[in-house]
Amino acid sequence: MVHSNQAHETINSRVEALLAKMTLKEKVGQVNQKLYGWEVYEKTDTGYVLTEKFKEHVQRWDGLGVLYGLFRSDPWSAIHFDNGITVEASAEVANMIQQYVKENTRLGIPVLLSEECSHGHQGLDSMITPVNLGIGATWNPELHEKLMAAVAEEVRAKGAHLALVSTLDILRDSRWGRSEECFSEDPFLAAQLTEAVVKGMQGKQADLIPADKMIAVLKHFAAQGNGAGGKNAAPASIGERELREIHLPPMKAAIQSGALACMAAYNEIDGIPCHANGQLLQQILREELGFNGAVMADGCALDNLVALTESREKAAALALESGVDISLWDDVYPALEAAVELGLVSEEKLNDAVRRVLTLKYKMELFDNPFVEENPQRNKEQAEKINLESARQSIVLLKNDGILPLKKELKRIAVIGPNADAMYNQLGDYTPFQRESRVLTVLRGIDSLAKEAEVLYEQGCGIRSDNEEGLEKAVRLASSSDVAVVVLGGSSARDFNAQFDQNGAVINTTGEEEMDCGENVDIADLELGGLQLKLLQKVIETGTPVVVVLISGRPHAIPWIAEHAPAIVSAWYPGQMGGQAIAEILFGEVNPSGRLPVSIPRSAMQLPVFYNYKDGGYRKDYYDMSGEPLYPFGFGLSYTEFVYDNLQIKRESIAAETLADGEKFCISVNATNAGDNDGYDVLQLYIKGKAGSIIRRVKELKGFKKVWLAAGETKEVHFELGAEELQVYSSHNTYKVEQGDFEIEVGNPVSSLSAALNIG
Amino acid sequence: MVHSNQAHETINSRVEALLAKMTLKEKVGQVNQKLYGWEVYEKTDTGYVLTEKFKEHVQRWDGLGVLYGLFRSDPWSAIHFDNGITVEASAEVANMIQQYVKENTRLGIPVLLSEECSHGHQGLDSMITPVNLGIGATWNPELHEKLMAAVAEEVRAKGAHLALVSTLDILRDSRWGRSEECFSEDPFLAAQLTEAVVKGMQGKQADLIPADKMIAVLKHFAAQGNGAGGKNAAPASIGERELREIHLPPMKAAIQSGALACMAAYNEIDGIPCHANGQLLQQILREELGFNGAVMADGCALDNLVALTESREKAAALALESGVDISLWDDVYPALEAAVELGLVSEEKLNDAVRRVLTLKYKMELFDNPFVEENPQRNKEQAEKINLESARQSIVLLKNDGILPLKKELKRIAVIGPNADAMYNQLGDYTPFQRESRVLTVLRGIDSLAKEAEVLYEQGCGIRSDNEEGLEKAVRLASSSDVAVVVLGGSSARDFNAQFDQNGAVINTTGEEEMDCGENVDIADLELGGLQLKLLQKVIETGTPVVVVLISGRPHAIPWIAEHAPAIVSAWYPGQMGGQAIAEILFGEVNPSGRLPVSIPRSAMQLPVFYNYKDGGYRKDYYDMSGEPLYPFGFGLSYTEFVYDNLQIKRESIAAETLADGEKFCISVNATNAGDNDGYDVLQLYIKGKAGSIIRRVKELKGFKKVWLAAGETKEVHFELGAEELQVYSSHNTYKVEQGDFEIEVGNPVSSLSAALNIG
Repeated sequence: MVHSNQAHETINSRVEALLAKMTLKEKVGQVNQKLYGWEVYEKTDTGYVLTEKFKEHVQRWDGLGVLYGLFRSDPWSAIHFDNGITVEASAEVANMIQQYVKENTRLGIPVLLSEECSHGHQGLDSMITPVNLGIGATWNPELHEKLMAAVAEEVRAKGAHLALVSTLDILRDSRWGRSEECFSEDPFLAAQLTEAVVKGMQGKQADLIPADKMIAVLKHFAAQGNGAGGKNAAPASIGERELREIHLPPMKAAIQSGALACMAAYNEIDGIPCHANGQLLQQILREELGFNGAVMADGCALDNLVALTESREKAAALALESGVDISLWDDVYPALEAAVELGLVSEEKLNDAVRRVLTLKYKMELFDNPFVEENPQRNKEQAEKINLESARQSIVLLKNDGILPLKKELKRIAVIGPNADAMYNQLGDYTPFQRESRVLTVLRGIDSLAKEAEVLYEQGCGIRSDNEEGLEKAVRLASSSDVAVVVLGGSSARDFNAQFDQNGAVINTTGEEEMDCGENVDIADLELGGLQLKLLQKVIETGTPVVVVLISGRPHAIPWIAEHAPAIVSAWYPGQMGGQAIAEILFGEVNPSGRLPVSIPRSAMQLPVFYNYKDGGYRKDYYDMSGEPLYPFGFGLSYTEFVYDNLQIKRESIAAETLADGEKFCISVNATNAGDNDGYDVLQLYIKGKAGSIIRRVKELKGFKKVWLAAGETKEVHFELGAEELQVYSSHNTYKVEQGDFEIEVGNPVSSLSAALNIG
Repeated sequence: MVHSNQAHETINSRVEALLAKMTLKEKVGQVNQKLYGWEVYEKTDTGYVLTEKFKEHVQRWDGLGVLYGLFRSDPWSAIHFDNGITVEASAEVANMIQQYVKENTRLGIPVLLSEECSHGHQGLDSMITPVNLGIGATWNPELHEKLMAAVAEEVRAKGAHLALVSTLDILRDSRWGRSEECFSEDPFLAAQLTEAVVKGMQGKQADLIPADKMIAVLKHFAAQGNGAGGKNAAPASIGERELREIHLPPMKAAIQSGALACMAAYNEIDGIPCHANGQLLQQILREELGFNGAVMADGCALDNLVALTESREKAAALALESGVDISLWDDVYPALEAAVELGLVSEEKLNDAVRRVLTLKYKMELFDNPFVEENPQRNKEQAEKINLESARQSIVLLKNDGILPLKKELKRIAVIGPNADAMYNQLGDYTPFQRESRVLTVLRGIDSLAKEAEVLYEQGCGIRSDNEEGLEKAVRLASSSDVAVVVLGGSSARDFNAQFDQNGAVINTTGEEEMDCGENVDIADLELGGLQLKLLQKVIETGTPVVVVLISGRPHAIPWIAEHAPAIVSAWYPGQMGGQAIAEILFGEVNPSGRLPVSIPRSAMQLPVFYNYKDGGYRKDYYDMSGEPLYPFGFGLSYTEFVYDNLQIKRESIAAETLADGEKFCISVNATNAGDNDGYDVLQLYIKGKAGSIIRRVKELKGFKKVWLAAGETKEVHFELGAEELQVYSSHNTYKVEQGDFEIEVGNPVSSLSAALNIG
């Protein structure tokens, strides 16, 4: 990352000069993000017009700090192709807003437009990528950086600046409906991918954001993945060491990559809501980790603080003191004006927040030019190639008795199941309305690749419905086919016919509950919903060879399937190119290279299940059930075979002080593709600390490399372990490289080499 | 509690005088508790003799600090009636040990004998009481104080001094096999009962323990009930506020009642093992809470520290520095001698631990007379009455469609199920070998009370076995009976034919897994094991009216039973008088008065389930399952009806400072027995803080009264709420009575009155 001190100083002095001119009202206007973007315009026969609500708001605050979700399309916003902003009109409407604010406010401060970019932009005609859990399965930060660059280019071209992206949540309880938004259960893998998001979206310049880049608002800080019972936004009763070991690493990595914004998490940590947590947002985030970007509130989270403070003004003061810079939808930050006037919080505290907002605007160079080019040329084809490649690499082959790849001579392929041809079911939550032509389902993917074979489809059953009507037809189809591809899983598809504010969360258009994942859709039972298992059992009973494809936003508990299905492919929500990617894997055109970013449990009764549990002299198994997952973190099969040898370590013992001074353990290993197919392998490096002042985890991922190996090829793969990877948050509550032995393990959970190292 | 300053000073000066004479070796000998009690003697044809192993140990250390489990009888010790110490011989053997140590060591320091007293003494011929979870259900600390006094009298008379009693563990995950050892999921209820244990066992004198009393070693400090996944001794990744709100209250209350000893917990808290946790054992326990008793290690827990320190000497130094005074079975504290010699820890630190051990011996007046009277007179009948009354009051009536109490005119009663006549299944873990005549099973209880009716028995099935053989016979019996009492549940019965060190944990004598509870027997699935549900379903299908009696050490998930059984009685493990108590309830001779000390979940998939969860703006239900328990904490039916009115509060608003100065809210309510039967009611007082610096729980129990009400009677019941009940561990990490409104609720979870209060 290149720091330009000059640019930095210029921005600072411009910010101070502007701030000095601002009234209290104007300042409060800058830190508020109250409007829903879809309320600010109307689409008329003659084009887009700004609403009175918008104009009144701008007048009320003599400005507009940040505008949320101008392009947001979904059941909640009730924005679709008829009434929304299509890609062609995006720049025009964004510019209209900038123009209006420029011309109708005293200081003409440009607006920051913030947009949801959970897995691609939640706006019409956007590119929908695999969800984060799929990205986690790619184990490929380089690829994800490219994908995020493509997303940023697309969304910035529409006129937006802030991309709201989940990257910080660690998946510790897969009952959570937002599991899909997590990269992993592991902090190291999530940190690497968070870095990729920052680099891909913002670029490598920390001071000025290039014209094809955006500022990533990283969600959510912190520990939302530890909500009690896997419930969304539920309390995380964890201690500071657990917080630091598991939940802080992605944000720490992001800051080192130049992150400029993050969003506070809904949950409390050990009794203190993140939005009122100065220890978290000031002492740890800013003072200790060195973050100097802006902290945005989560939607209406500040309103929740009123339960504690019993007044909006006090809630506003508390949040501002605690380090929240920008609001979201709440009625609390509008009360900052009164809070300052009442002396509940100092204007200097408010100035700090305003400085951070203005700094983002200067970094985006909006003061020089808030407008974007209408209908710019973009290389959409290149973006979609990256998207397809991400989908391919996200797919994990869990089991293969030899049925995969599918034989060329198949005459008749049955494609069965609720996720075989359901567009929205493969796109995840936070998805905009789609044109059908743009989404490749598994059925379409198989159909387009299986040139010789006849491809026939039966849905069989729904995701959660108990309607048995389709079962028999599906079984008949399977019976008369050479192979049955049974596509099961979950769905985060909201009801796209729901009204505004209903959010489509519960009942779909057929009146049946079909969703089982997504924000606020937490489930207790991790087995597949509805009649899916029954459908599969009946199809398997026909004797026709079966391949199970799972499309879902969380790891489902699939003990029966693991035992009885000849092959299992897990594809998460793979995005709009998903069907093609899956078909390519099934037909062997692509060698699967995804590895589990999360342990697959046997049952929800076994939770929590993650690989990096604490060591100690306790029994890991239940009396009535194994404590081990069904498939472990890091697991994934290939159509070729990889073998490892010659694990070498340059120096096996290094003094703690030497490591603290920057010295590293240098480790190398040979990886060989011993099979007949080219393919990617993912080499994983785990450490196990054997002594020290705290209880260590049984394994900690501290390095990985995704390596392309042609059939027969051998490559030497290198890893380094330095102070950053080896330090612990010691019993003295400071980070320290502690003396002692440790073990390293290189390979994957099924096959690995190990060696002992020592810190002297 | 009466403090005798004079006695206290005398003890201190005697301790210092003795300590000054001691060698390093003698000191280390005093803090070690290495021997298993059953290794120190042999029963020969001519009587009991001390073993060479014992004598060598005494010689090695020139003393014996504490001797564990002289009387312990169970599969692990392999001590039974043939080779163990019967009640008549107890004093003789205990005196023999004291005599030997007195005569064969330089200083002749008497020995402390420590004994497991989980639910009565784990020695032959002892009185076996309900397990703690049943005691929790009595909501009757006064009764428990009497019961504990009876236990102490019995065990002290055998010559023992330290009673190891679980009281501190809070039940937060009922998968835990030690659920039975917890009083409750609630810290307040557990604290009240812990106080009862201290007062009952030790008496009210903090300085000199009367001759019929013992010192309670309270287990376990701290947070063992929060082990990840409900696994025994698993990490508790909680923060300090969660620790203080949920896990510290019992110990705090115990200290206020004069507790003199506790045992450290196996688990770590946020990365630091309790046995190496100076913050916990020194700063919090001693400096903040004012504990000046002794801390005992848990069995071999110090050995676990060697994984961190890589040497026994360092582990010994770490534990001693952290505040552990007495070892248990480990190889670590013997290494204290070397640790001091190597300078790893100061001898002054060791002196502190020795002082604490010697102080206990002086408090027991062992230096004046270490011997006990052989065959003293004791009022065993009175003790058994208290035990029976505890069993009665521990029984919770969960459901009653009117079938209970059983009609007098019944001709034929079927008693069915694996827990209907299985002696050990109703006694819990930590149970000694039993004489059959001393344990009243449900079958025996019903048989003795049902004078007119014919009582017939079929086991039906096992606890976890899949042997279907008995089902048909049970169904036939039910079909031909007027009522079927189906006794289901769990079992902590170890295999009493197992060899030493096998501990009987897995396979019973029939070769089937029948146990599903107890230490290290954690289960994932909370539904009833084996064929129990199938048996019940078949019995219900006969059309014969059914009463389900649950005998278990944890709350089982019983959604089907709750829906289909006409009546459900939960009796936990009720101890040796259990069968009689249950029969008395079934026949209406006793009106059930137990209330749930723990929420009964619908499923293990729904965990954690407890009533005092954190408030906040998140969805409490799962998408596919309610978030509510099947039966709530505090719930329990009666054969009469209680109504509440006239909730009065003397002053509805009190200033925080006034409360801090000792002022209290005075609350009264009228409770009326509006039914036709006399009985106990339990009035519960909950508070809900509405504002403050931290997120409060939806409800917090802060008072309860168990009240006897004759049919038609009304009583005015009083509660007080002061600083102790109202303070929080604030966001500034200090205890504080914070200003704001709160709500109180008086009654029970089904029927209550509420009112608003204010702290100004």
